[in-house]
Amino acid sequence: MADEIILLDFWASIFGMRVRVALAEKGLKYEKREEDLWNKSPLLLEVNPVHKKIPVLIHNGKPICESMILVQYIDEVWNHKSPLLPTDPYQRAQARFWADYIDKKLYDLGKKILLTKGEEQETAKKEFIECLKLLEGELGEKPYFGGENFGLVDVALVTFSSRFYAYESIGNFSIEAECPKLIAWTKRCMQKESVSSSLADPHKVHAFVMGLRKKTGIE
Amino acid sequence: MADEIILLDFWASIFGMRVRVALAEKGLKYEKREEDLWNKSPLLLEVNPVHKKIPVLIHNGKPICESMILVQYIDEVWNHKSPLLPTDPYQRAQARFWADYIDKKLYDLGKKILLTKGEEQETAKKEFIECLKLLEGELGEKPYFGGENFGLVDVALVTFSSRFYAYESIGNFSIEAECPKLIAWTKRCMQKESVSSSLADPHKVHAFVMGLRKKTGIE
Repeated sequence: MADEIILLDFWASIFGMRVRVALAEKGLKYEKREEDLWNKSPLLLEVNPVHKKIPVLIHNGKPICESMILVQYIDEVWNHKSPLLPTDPYQRAQARFWADYIDKKLYDLGKKILLTKGEEQETAKKEFIECLKLLEGELGEKPYFGGENFGLVDVALVTFSSRFYAYESIGNFSIEAECPKLIAWTKRCMQKESVSSSLADPHKVHAFVMGLRKKTGIE
Repeated sequence: MADEIILLDFWASIFGMRVRVALAEKGLKYEKREEDLWNKSPLLLEVNPVHKKIPVLIHNGKPICESMILVQYIDEVWNHKSPLLPTDPYQRAQARFWADYIDKKLYDLGKKILLTKGEEQETAKKEFIECLKLLEGELGEKPYFGGENFGLVDVALVTFSSRFYAYESIGNFSIEAECPKLIAWTKRCMQKESVSSSLADPHKVHAFVMGLRKKTGIE
């Protein structure tokens, strides 16, 4: 029997995009159900009662939540193709460390660039750039964070690139000027069908964020 | 050659205790180096330049950081004894989900009970109890969160019990009155040598926190 895979998602979510990338890396077909985050479906509330957030993957009726847990789940279940985690425990721990760093630092700082202004935005921008530089240093001369192969940290970080245009135009700075190697890496990732087909259009993301800024009175 | 295992630790850290429990579950001997968190050692700053936090495990010269990443590392390297994660990917994802929930919610709420007062403390206390009740519901009638066997979620949560006395006496409430099954579970865990030998004395933790409250002017 074929696997039934349903993804509860939201088009502009960097967390949802991670799951899309991981599923595409494994060559899996799935049913994507778009959620209205301002009017969540009864199904979403039922399958993720704790956080009430997308993405949720429902695999043969069983729900799994939280994007990086989901990416690891996908990697463990469909381990025959495009492994996202290395086999060596030390390298696995390093990959988990950087994915965790991205989740702990980058998301909130990026959100502050998009949804605040003035001093708060400036402080977030400086810290955000520091984080990206640290990540660029970790990338070094490798083609991917996973080394020769696209892996867990690449999945965790690459979806942020769908917001780079929004960060730059709202925050008034250039990521490429600060982190040229990181931008070269995003372009390398975008050459992969699994990434380019999974990420939202940066201009649509920008328009969406500008709408939020107006709606919440920031603009 | 025998493994060289060094743990940079702080006696009252619930994160450090997790690593102690995991190492004890695996029956591993290691050198414990106590850090002064107000005057961190050059070694700590060298091996964890990103977060500058304990615990750090240095295994044959290679540093690994972040407690739950460390517990998974220990489980993967020494997988011949006392597995902490199940083998089934869905159950692994569920274990990671609850360990992540504990990290995202419980620590900060508990810290607010210990290091604030008045309205802020009361709000945190209510949310903290809600979280514990949710966890108690997840435990259900199982002996451990891992089912018949002590596992990842048990390691993640049990170290908080070293703070239960401090939470209760500073927050003026009874965890046992709110969550009797969770307290029965902590007592079950404490019957394990790996846990009882790794957790700090609750009265010493309380005295330490009271010292912090006085030092920072909360009392």
